[in-house]
Amino acid sequence: MNNPQLNKNGELQHLLSTEGLPVDILRAILDKAATFVDVSDGFEIRNEPLLKGKSVFNVFFENSTRTRTTFEIAAKRLSADVVNLNIGSSSTSKGETLLDTVDNLCAMHADMFVVRHSQSGASHIIARHVAPEIHVINAGDGRHAHPTQALLDMFTIRHYKKEFHNLRVAIVGDVLHSRVARSQIHALTTLGVPEVRVVAPKTLLPTMVENLGVQVYHDMSQGLLDVDVVMMLRLQNERMQGAALPSAQEYFKYYGLTEEKLAHAKPDAIVMHPGPMNRGIEIESSVADGKHSVILPQVTFGIAVRMAVMCMLAGAKG
Amino acid sequence: MNNPQLNKNGELQHLLSTEGLPVDILRAILDKAATFVDVSDGFEIRNEPLLKGKSVFNVFFENSTRTRTTFEIAAKRLSADVVNLNIGSSSTSKGETLLDTVDNLCAMHADMFVVRHSQSGASHIIARHVAPEIHVINAGDGRHAHPTQALLDMFTIRHYKKEFHNLRVAIVGDVLHSRVARSQIHALTTLGVPEVRVVAPKTLLPTMVENLGVQVYHDMSQGLLDVDVVMMLRLQNERMQGAALPSAQEYFKYYGLTEEKLAHAKPDAIVMHPGPMNRGIEIESSVADGKHSVILPQVTFGIAVRMAVMCMLAGAKG
Amino acid sequence: MNNPQLNKNGELQHLLSTEGLPVDILRAILDKAATFVDVSDGFEIRNEPLLKGKSVFNVFFENSTRTRTTFEIAAKRLSADVVNLNIGSSSTSKGETLLDTVDNLCAMHADMFVVRHSQSGASHIIARHVAPEIHVINAGDGRHAHPTQALLDMFTIRHYKKEFHNLRVAIVGDVLHSRVARSQIHALTTLGVPEVRVVAPKTLLPTMVENLGVQVYHDMSQGLLDVDVVMMLRLQNERMQGAALPSAQEYFKYYGLTEEKLAHAKPDAIVMHPGPMNRGIEIESSVADGKHSVILPQVTFGIAVRMAVMCMLAGAKG
Repeated sequence: MNNPQLNKNGELQHLLSTEGLPVDILRAILDKAATFVDVSDGFEIRNEPLLKGKSVFNVFFENSTRTRTTFEIAAKRLSADVVNLNIGSSSTSKGETLLDTVDNLCAMHADMFVVRHSQSGASHIIARHVAPEIHVINAGDGRHAHPTQALLDMFTIRHYKKEFHNLRVAIVGDVLHSRVARSQIHALTTLGVPEVRVVAPKTLLPTMVENLGVQVYHDMSQGLLDVDVVMMLRLQNERMQGAALPSAQEYFKYYGLTEEKLAHAKPDAIVMHPGPMNRGIEIESSVADGKHSVILPQVTFGIAVRMAVMCMLAGAKG
Repeated sequence: MNNPQLNKNGELQHLLSTEGLPVDILRAILDKAATFVDVSDGFEIRNEPLLKGKSVFNVFFENSTRTRTTFEIAAKRLSADVVNLNIGSSSTSKGETLLDTVDNLCAMHADMFVVRHSQSGASHIIARHVAPEIHVINAGDGRHAHPTQALLDMFTIRHYKKEFHNLRVAIVGDVLHSRVARSQIHALTTLGVPEVRVVAPKTLLPTMVENLGVQVYHDMSQGLLDVDVVMMLRLQNERMQGAALPSAQEYFKYYGLTEEKLAHAKPDAIVMHPGPMNRGIEIESSVADGKHSVILPQVTFGIAVRMAVMCMLAGAKG
Repeated sequence: MNNPQLNKNGELQHLLSTEGLPVDILRAILDKAATFVDVSDGFEIRNEPLLKGKSVFNVFFENSTRTRTTFEIAAKRLSADVVNLNIGSSSTSKGETLLDTVDNLCAMHADMFVVRHSQSGASHIIARHVAPEIHVINAGDGRHAHPTQALLDMFTIRHYKKEFHNLRVAIVGDVLHSRVARSQIHALTTLGVPEVRVVAPKTLLPTMVENLGVQVYHDMSQGLLDVDVVMMLRLQNERMQGAALPSAQEYFKYYGLTEEKLAHAKPDAIVMHPGPMNRGIEIESSVADGKHSVILPQVTFGIAVRMAVMCMLAGAKG
């Protein structure tokens, strides 16, 4: 089988995308993550020295303090050694190729790479290049994928809704530019969610988005009607000045999640956001901080999910 | 009681300012710090695994390698896990609010925040916001406070002078813009120093500075007369170009600490400086490196004092 | 004896340069490094807690993610505590002198400094200044020296060629601006290599380079003739725009290492490069990735050599 994420035994070799990830692998990650969360005590995360002696290299070609920190914390809770490399201002600017940089880090005996890159596909290129004992986690590549974000979202949904097969989920906002949305859609459909909706203006939707198995809405009151889960997307600052949107105020009027719009969803709907939030633009503060919001538990679960992914990769015997 | 630094049992919950800190808490910090210093051996600092399993987040919204490093070393000597976040170029620039950033870091299970911020009051805002089991240390906020610097200064004074009740102390330089000076004045008066002087040109003094309980001098020979302790302040580069000062040379002539001016102080006076020093501007090299200088012991004691503060916060049972 | 690198017992006190390093010290470093490399298993590097409780400060006044990372990994494999300081944007820009910065770090109880600085001689100045129990490793200073790079090169040569006394070695490229070349030449001649060549255009050679004990070639086919080792140098981007070179293309034509030019060397010649490589400028990709290339083992051996240097410094009893 030529799925670059699996080894010949069908184990998880790299985590590059939720697209093409078998449902049993997806469920195994969520199950493993659950073992690290003590839900009896405000979502305490357990320390487990399962990666002792392993070196995790956070290789960030694009700056992201938040994502880098969550991976660093996850690795340290597993007792791995963590090396942070902010490559933006380093060797690549000296003319070295991406793969030469990777070869060098491999020669320093990295066991696992966590890669953030502005180019779609960068992690795939690295994963194809490295030796079989080295594992790659995509921490966000261009507009392509951000699988650990999608996995922590799935963990959060399962925690609050128990099952996937009976859910109606709406993803709201700038789907066009969002690697998060793409990874969420693949994870939701793989896990058997029967109805995944995207709610956005036409200018913020990819062409042929229906081919991903989603239903398209341009109106919030219809798109949120009777949904169990509302997954908000971040509206990036650069879009607000661009031609795709009339203005941030108008965006908020039509697509910002307010209590009024949320009232169309089911009474026990949960509200999610990958952060960082633009309050007053894509989400109203009273909703972000309200009783439907599970935005902060998402962050905590993100530590557990990243620990789970690292453990599964380290355990691959392929 | 509504002192945000103390919990309902009167224990230190956060360290935000030396203002309003009860004298017994102040003394307890100095006593605790003393247990980490082996004075018999060139001020060796002991390692003690008192914070094992705790996560200390150095959250620096304003860059400061030196201060960040001292907290990192202090936390590591206590066996805490340390996560460094340089937020300047991160989420806040992405439109996220300060408190959303803090909420996210709390959701990653920080036990203690060390916060440096360019805005006065930032640490107070964070301290009021976080859950009771999370502790905040102000590592410098705007022009407001820098309490660990003042505490290490107090430790240094006590080490060399034994008592506070019989001292005459002069604080020299840009009091107006100095969070260090403000924190020093509060600490000195709380600890019972009977005579605290500020020596500076009018343009570098706050209006009504006398209300802080200090005596004002504009002349060094009078201001330093018979003092036991000379606490120099750093003259920030931006002031030297500003309207507040005629020139760096003229500043040095009138307010730079030279051997000649220091001769007005007591023969056993000690000279302190929070660093980084501008040699030849606020202090002459022969004084900085001379027998009265205790500038480098200040740095070493700073590790011990920061360890003490972290231990006391972690031990609060409130 | 006034060699600043040795203490009064002749032990290695600082590593500042390969110039003036006695041959027995040089060999001792290589022997010690060999104890950390498991050559039976793809050059696995062993962990040894020989620096437990010691603090290694990576003090980089000039940014270098790659070099900083190799020292960080080496120190961690020895169980040292590592503190990374990127000083470029810090205290020195606040007007503090180099030695005040160093004094402050010493007062924080650094045991060892790894120093990268853009000024030639910076590490010497620091080494002369610090207390006898503190050790300094030069991680590159201006155009002067980069001794750990040269030592890892020597380790690599000895690994593949066993002996030094029977070798012909060519150093190719921008010798003029290269601290690496200078350190290599001193190490090679000290270890008894009978024939060291430099191959470069006149504009990229120091005047009187012959005085270093090397033979000068301006033509690759002659310079590489029958050599055992080809040590390529990096051509820095800024040279390519400068007056010293007509163009990158022309440089590659005359001095870029191609398979055709390499054919003049011995059939079992090894090809080395300190990285980062400019493929297509100083070296052809097929050579960089070819069977003569030992460029990636150099990186791995670099970890072992840096571990060895740290251990020897920490063991100095002087």
